[in-house]
Amino acid sequence: MAIAVLAPACADEGMWTFDNFPSEAVKQSYGVEVSAAWLDHVRLSTLRLTNCTASFVSPQGLLLTNHHCVESCLGELSSRDDSLLENGFSAPTTNAERRCATQVADVLVSMENVTAAVTKAGDGFSDEAANDARKRTLTALEQACEQASGRSSSGKLKCQAVTLYEGGQYFLYKYKRYDDVRLVFTPETDIAAFGGDPDNFQFPRWSLDFAILRAYEHGKPARTPEYLKIDFAGPRAGQLVFVSGHPGSTSRLETHAQLEFERDLSLPTTLLRTSELRGGYIQYGRANQSDRELVEAPLNSLENGIKVRRKLLDALHDDTLMNRKLSEEATLRALANMPGPDPWKQIETASQRERAMYLPYTFIEGAAGFNSILFRYARLLLRGADERAKPNTERLREYTDSMLPRIEQQLYARVPIYGEVETLTLSFSLQRMREWLGPDNPLVRTLLARESPETLATRVVAESKLEDPEVRRLLWLGGKGAMDQSRDPMIELARSIDPDARALRRQFDDEIEAPINAASARIATARFKAFGTRIYPDATFTLRLNYGTVTGWTENGTAVPPFTYLERAFQRATGSSPFKIPDSWMRIKDRLDLRTPFCISTSNDIVGGNSGSPLIDARGDIVGLMFDGNIESIAGSYWFDPSNNRAIAVHPAIIREALDKVYAAKSLLAELEGS
Amino acid sequence: MAIAVLAPACADEGMWTFDNFPSEAVKQSYGVEVSAAWLDHVRLSTLRLTNCTASFVSPQGLLLTNHHCVESCLGELSSRDDSLLENGFSAPTTNAERRCATQVADVLVSMENVTAAVTKAGDGFSDEAANDARKRTLTALEQACEQASGRSSSGKLKCQAVTLYEGGQYFLYKYKRYDDVRLVFTPETDIAAFGGDPDNFQFPRWSLDFAILRAYEHGKPARTPEYLKIDFAGPRAGQLVFVSGHPGSTSRLETHAQLEFERDLSLPTTLLRTSELRGGYIQYGRANQSDRELVEAPLNSLENGIKVRRKLLDALHDDTLMNRKLSEEATLRALANMPGPDPWKQIETASQRERAMYLPYTFIEGAAGFNSILFRYARLLLRGADERAKPNTERLREYTDSMLPRIEQQLYARVPIYGEVETLTLSFSLQRMREWLGPDNPLVRTLLARESPETLATRVVAESKLEDPEVRRLLWLGGKGAMDQSRDPMIELARSIDPDARALRRQFDDEIEAPINAASARIATARFKAFGTRIYPDATFTLRLNYGTVTGWTENGTAVPPFTYLERAFQRATGSSPFKIPDSWMRIKDRLDLRTPFCISTSNDIVGGNSGSPLIDARGDIVGLMFDGNIESIAGSYWFDPSNNRAIAVHPAIIREALDKVYAAKSLLAELEGS
Repeated sequence: MAIAVLAPACADEGMWTFDNFPSEAVKQSYGVEVSAAWLDHVRLSTLRLTNCTASFVSPQGLLLTNHHCVESCLGELSSRDDSLLENGFSAPTTNAERRCATQVADVLVSMENVTAAVTKAGDGFSDEAANDARKRTLTALEQACEQASGRSSSGKLKCQAVTLYEGGQYFLYKYKRYDDVRLVFTPETDIAAFGGDPDNFQFPRWSLDFAILRAYEHGKPARTPEYLKIDFAGPRAGQLVFVSGHPGSTSRLETHAQLEFERDLSLPTTLLRTSELRGGYIQYGRANQSDRELVEAPLNSLENGIKVRRKLLDALHDDTLMNRKLSEEATLRALANMPGPDPWKQIETASQRERAMYLPYTFIEGAAGFNSILFRYARLLLRGADERAKPNTERLREYTDSMLPRIEQQLYARVPIYGEVETLTLSFSLQRMREWLGPDNPLVRTLLARESPETLATRVVAESKLEDPEVRRLLWLGGKGAMDQSRDPMIELARSIDPDARALRRQFDDEIEAPINAASARIATARFKAFGTRIYPDATFTLRLNYGTVTGWTENGTAVPPFTYLERAFQRATGSSPFKIPDSWMRIKDRLDLRTPFCISTSNDIVGGNSGSPLIDARGDIVGLMFDGNIESIAGSYWFDPSNNRAIAVHPAIIREALDKVYAAKSLLAELEGS
Repeated sequence: MAIAVLAPACADEGMWTFDNFPSEAVKQSYGVEVSAAWLDHVRLSTLRLTNCTASFVSPQGLLLTNHHCVESCLGELSSRDDSLLENGFSAPTTNAERRCATQVADVLVSMENVTAAVTKAGDGFSDEAANDARKRTLTALEQACEQASGRSSSGKLKCQAVTLYEGGQYFLYKYKRYDDVRLVFTPETDIAAFGGDPDNFQFPRWSLDFAILRAYEHGKPARTPEYLKIDFAGPRAGQLVFVSGHPGSTSRLETHAQLEFERDLSLPTTLLRTSELRGGYIQYGRANQSDRELVEAPLNSLENGIKVRRKLLDALHDDTLMNRKLSEEATLRALANMPGPDPWKQIETASQRERAMYLPYTFIEGAAGFNSILFRYARLLLRGADERAKPNTERLREYTDSMLPRIEQQLYARVPIYGEVETLTLSFSLQRMREWLGPDNPLVRTLLARESPETLATRVVAESKLEDPEVRRLLWLGGKGAMDQSRDPMIELARSIDPDARALRRQFDDEIEAPINAASARIATARFKAFGTRIYPDATFTLRLNYGTVTGWTENGTAVPPFTYLERAFQRATGSSPFKIPDSWMRIKDRLDLRTPFCISTSNDIVGGNSGSPLIDARGDIVGLMFDGNIESIAGSYWFDPSNNRAIAVHPAIIREALDKVYAAKSLLAELEGS
């Protein structure tokens, strides 16, 4: 039924905003009351990390999240001689907790609907002018919100404008930010990511994917009265469970033309680039066994992306589902009976234009041709200087006043940068840019007129001074004057492509983003008219709540049960990563309870960004820690299949067993147990 | 018009067999008579190499082909200290000519239509049994043909059964084989492949992609009265030209369901695997500058495959063309009015089954999980021993008596094998097999129960003795007895997967190949009924002739002229590979005629396998040497677009200029000029 699909409040599907949670439906299906107080408590106990979710689990700011969510922090805190990825980390006292220099944690304090103001800003303009006007309005709203909060007694907030329903709604989300987040505990990667890439998105599963952080304020553990208690007994099969967190991105409301663009162009192209880089990383690790950890974190993240995109591509190759999309569009078109040009057709036209500019946009403005941490610093500094010279509302949105503290945190953080890895990534990306844009592309010709990709990459990485945070700080503070005088070769590289990059950005915003936004907003209006609020917006890495049950599924006629147990992990181990159980576990194997539950499968509707989310029972206690989905869940980016889309959590009992017996982290465990 | 498309004797499209060349159409369009004698002469002057084409260009067995066609020979003749790829090669006398140990060159002496006998063999059987019966018949026909030729005065021939029109016709092709082929001349890779991968499939172009070989008989230069004269002046724009050669594979007659299979599964999967390996090779070369040449030849070949597949995938994402395919099928279905089940539907059903078994088949039977030269030797030896113990007609087709001399040549050849490259390719492929089949696949679990992919690859490569041709020879001659006793770890690896691999092969043959062959033959019959012989078969790496003109095309409104000139190559050079002009040229630049034509664009319908083909004028003289197509020509695998599908040749004038002035190869040039 097309309508049932369009208005999917059936099954336990949905990534609901906290202001529109279907409490009534939960009550009808499960007899459970989700009160406003419960919602507030859960919301205020949930945090957004840089690319994950976490939750407060003690009144002293302790945070529970995934090991893979702190992987980049572990890399930053490691050196060639001491790898926290390999060895794990356990702080015996708060003094020993180590700051994750680039991490922040945001709590969503309140939400304000600003749809009317934003929509009105674009009224009467062309698509391009309206698009610009809306952006200026969003910046102005954020600025006013932050200034107002700075004057209030409850403290300064971060305000972020959020676009929901592809432009059907605009909100201001107001966050309390913790910018001092420290590492408390993490197990070794061998057990945290047991099964590695081969087991990623698989279930049954035995990955102890958890880590503990702590939020600090004024140099001391934060006081966090809103926190979630962990019930180490975990959930029962069939039990109602909720996930509060930040799903990163879905495309369920996108049109058939937009999905075709992903299927034909962006997914295959990205997969080719990342697969090649994966080969480069792996070969680097093979040839440099002792420096293998230098590429471990970027390789893991890359491999995760490859697996996701591979399955997304498979999903879009399902013609039945693609055709269902078309028929849903036809149904809504008929229901809505819109005046004026057909918005689906307008999006299709814009998507065709996007195809034509996709490669130059991706390689130059998207910087896929300049894959290097130092290059990203260079561009931040360069554009930061140019943009700060403009009034706040005239800037690129990522350089508004609201964004500056985060940029400064990144620029000032002392993190290790490995020249040979930088050269590897930069030379691969330059080479691929030359292939895809062609050696006769004017920018490619200019860049590579006398140097090969390898020579250019080697030179700019070797000669740049941007790995020094003090150099970056001085350039940032020096602003445009300092930047104009800088002869740092990475800055010169960024400067040499910036006019082309900005022109592509302008072209993209006007010719693709503006008409797509305008048409999408009209489709959203039609959808609201037809279905009211019985629909939820696509994921946007903002806070959502969903519900489901603890359940497995049926695969090729065989039931997959919802729990796994420690015993099987030992049976599955081979002694070689990624199927190696660390010595810390092997040594005390006979003292472990092999019947300890390890992982849990649930029917919650989650997606990347939900990593680290608490799995919560009706009382509001944590009964699991989300870290993955099954392989079928990846197609959830486009459509939710309740029969086999499953979320995967770490069971709290295995966390307790590990902290207690393997790592003897007694005081940490005591804090988690509230004793 | 669907019919015009189905019967494509319009435009200059078509890869015609020599027995069905449309001489009448050529006469009507161009006023040129293509006589039977002309056809025989051209056919007997054309040779098939291992994966390319060549032509006789002197009565003493001199062969003209592409540099990239002898790349693997150059690798085999190179060592760590002397790279023929880097330095080129020029034999001052015949004594200095060096044998390409694994090369053969076949001349098509005659063709015999055996359709009736083969078709009859399958009559009245199930699809599976008919498929087997046809294979037995093909083997028996080949065997009888070779035995008969051995008794004849004109000498022993190689007989190969050829399937045309997807099973609509069967032929016996009879070849005179030269198995002693020697390297005479090749320029440096930097000029032969000027532009490298970035310029591959591009035009305008400046690649001196030629090489000279010589066929030997009884240890002496072969006497070859049938040869083509080179006209170093080259062709005129607009002139009628022919290409005689061996296009490798096209899918123009395949069904919509088969193309969908390629689009959704085989192309993306292969692209991911090869892109990752590409990254591994490149990183190997970056880290081992001095041993970079060890991966140069395999990397070039891999990159060529990536570019081809990338463009094939783009072509299949063109929904207009895919839908045209569907409507062509509907037209033929209506015209043919076939009794019984719909063959297109039958192929679709079989393609669905192929999807389900594609990954295990590819990784295990297709050995994509065991990417190693030593593994390929191991399987050849293992299966060779098992198969030779059976009657000839009961064997797998690649191990029939007719194939054995070629297998022995490969096994006995002394070629360099680099352990670190073997370990690289094998460990990448094992790792990917584990990912794609999953760590719980029974074969994967068995292989990797105690070893990681890296450990396993390192061990079997280090401990195998199969890099020694004498070891291989003794195992081959020792047959099953010797093989059963061998404890060579690479043979043990091949042995351990062979039952699974053979079971997959059997399943594939019965459940996919058999019904597809049966249905394809019925479609072919319908097509013959509708269009007679006004259609040509898909490419099968057998001899074909086509015609076209010397012409450029129009790209985005700009005319691309059909000739390039030497001067522009110097302007385009950067000094770094792949845009480096070698010192041998730079030194004498002022003595070169910069107005020398370099490359030619023509409208001939060619595809991979045609590399090295002579471009021939109406007199039968060579006026160019095919080596590539433009980027649009890649879609020619599925459909021919006369407006922009172009073939690319080296101009004979630049070959003359190079041999005369750069390489001072006076006696070679004299032989080519017949003086």
